[in-house]
Amino acid sequence: MNNQRVVLASRPRGAPSLDNFRVESVPVRDLKDGEVLIKNLYLSLDPYMRMRMNDASSYADPVQIGEVMFGGTVGRVLASRRPGFSEGDLVTGYTGWQSLAVTDDPTLARLPRNMAQPSLALSLVGMPGFTAHYGLLNLGKPRPGETVVVGAATGAVGSVVGQIAKLKGCRAIGIAGGAEKCAYAVNELGFDACLDHGSPSFSSDLAAACPKGIDVYFENVGGDVLRAVLPLLNDFARMPLCGLIAWYNGDRSAKPVLAAEVLPALLVKRVQMQGFVIIDQYLEHHDGFLKDMQGWLAAGKMKVREDVVEGIENAPAAFIGLLEGKNFGKLVVRVAQDDNSD
Amino acid sequence: MNNQRVVLASRPRGAPSLDNFRVESVPVRDLKDGEVLIKNLYLSLDPYMRMRMNDASSYADPVQIGEVMFGGTVGRVLASRRPGFSEGDLVTGYTGWQSLAVTDDPTLARLPRNMAQPSLALSLVGMPGFTAHYGLLNLGKPRPGETVVVGAATGAVGSVVGQIAKLKGCRAIGIAGGAEKCAYAVNELGFDACLDHGSPSFSSDLAAACPKGIDVYFENVGGDVLRAVLPLLNDFARMPLCGLIAWYNGDRSAKPVLAAEVLPALLVKRVQMQGFVIIDQYLEHHDGFLKDMQGWLAAGKMKVREDVVEGIENAPAAFIGLLEGKNFGKLVVRVAQDDNSD
Repeated sequence: MNNQRVVLASRPRGAPSLDNFRVESVPVRDLKDGEVLIKNLYLSLDPYMRMRMNDASSYADPVQIGEVMFGGTVGRVLASRRPGFSEGDLVTGYTGWQSLAVTDDPTLARLPRNMAQPSLALSLVGMPGFTAHYGLLNLGKPRPGETVVVGAATGAVGSVVGQIAKLKGCRAIGIAGGAEKCAYAVNELGFDACLDHGSPSFSSDLAAACPKGIDVYFENVGGDVLRAVLPLLNDFARMPLCGLIAWYNGDRSAKPVLAAEVLPALLVKRVQMQGFVIIDQYLEHHDGFLKDMQGWLAAGKMKVREDVVEGIENAPAAFIGLLEGKNFGKLVVRVAQDDNSD
Repeated sequence: MNNQRVVLASRPRGAPSLDNFRVESVPVRDLKDGEVLIKNLYLSLDPYMRMRMNDASSYADPVQIGEVMFGGTVGRVLASRRPGFSEGDLVTGYTGWQSLAVTDDPTLARLPRNMAQPSLALSLVGMPGFTAHYGLLNLGKPRPGETVVVGAATGAVGSVVGQIAKLKGCRAIGIAGGAEKCAYAVNELGFDACLDHGSPSFSSDLAAACPKGIDVYFENVGGDVLRAVLPLLNDFARMPLCGLIAWYNGDRSAKPVLAAEVLPALLVKRVQMQGFVIIDQYLEHHDGFLKDMQGWLAAGKMKVREDVVEGIENAPAAFIGLLEGKNFGKLVVRVAQDDNSD
């Protein structure tokens, strides 16, 4: 039985290219005690993975050259030597960019065996949904009537931030790339407005959409979007710092945003900015998130749009596109058909 | 009776110069109901005043051209038409850069009439001491054994931050300009170490002084000091954002600090950065501060070094020097001798 996998071939400088990845087919080794063999069905592609490609200390170890790319997955257990997991179990965890995983992943968790849409474990009820829920509610602390702004508004996290903001009685303003995404954010996700960051009038469009200023800026982006947000921040605004996709490939802007622009604004406006990484919050906050999200899903109050790519061999190109904003919705790779669902 | 006062003559571009100020002598007008006439004894000079000289929206209104420069003072009441204030009262408030003030200043507060060292109302028991106390304890939340780093370590705020950090069982590391200030910080204020930011080995000196990283960075400075701090911040560090003196005259650095350097570091390290302005905190936190500070003073646990300039007409040059780090200790102007103390 062969595993098709994507390994890090070399470290990117700036934007990654296809030759930073290598697709390999390697035999699957035997299970040791404590391990399971998983057939992956879905792989989540997320912007944070870009940081794992750097050889820099971060909250997580970098992926080593020749190692399988790190990533969240949903799969079926084919064989288990780990208590609590049995053949046929539907599971989610971080088993990486590969079709078959032999793993002792401590984050592995069982899902309902016959879950209708298993890929939701990588979006609404998974890491991105939890990120949006924790970041917005625990750090953003929005009050009814306040204005919440989020970039990458149709992405896996931003789309949930906007929907939760609306459920909490806020004005939700999205920022996205292009008219089609903006229309989707307003018409399908329920944002009050969504501005195209590529428009020449973006800054004034954003100001017009936030007549009472910005109380919560959920930061996914950095770069010119941050620059446009700064003058609109209200006193005592909150800024959950979740992602900075504009800078993951390095700051390639012709006019880089200076710290001397950002920090003085945050000082005089008494802004609270809080960096966070959702892996820290599972113990304390995951149950509350799941309860909220499952309630909203059952009530039909939460939408997700998936951008599905077929085949693990296409993950590198899809990931490169994600960093360029080419995806439309939550980007997932369908790794294999699910034969075992019953 | 003539008032000698310093007004804003023109707005500076970059560093202020003497011609941005004008010293005037004008007759004192009669009191209206609700006003007091104050003979100022001491004027506090503080970095934040630079921001008031810009015509930009901030947490406070800018000083208008021709208006008396804003500033905290200690003085004697010469005449009062305001209930609660009588001739001979020693008072502190914000009556500006002038020798005689006719004012209805809502912040005016009485001090003990025979206070031994009235200028302390502008340092340890005044705004700078309160700023250090609130920012360090309420936002920095230092735990015993943690490492607290503060810039402008011999200044009005930084010197108190370091002393409180030591009282709370922390390792206190200062940053200051020049060997003399650094020696004072260690030998007199009790910092565990103090690094000269002008040294070519500053970054490595700071790293060596913080072998366990930095848990609280009390930000007074910005610029290259911030750049040196970033790689040393520990996960979940706190960064009270109090001042950015390196940037008040604009960012004149040959290699400006980029937002793309700062924010990604704060994200992956899950840092909380909180901008604050102490005027917001009087209602809730001032009593607790005074209780702590008066206790520490009575126990001989708190030191202050004053850098005293004689004469209101010398305030502009002294203020320009403050922004260049030329002061050594809390900078105050002695406006007049106190004839009334008894």
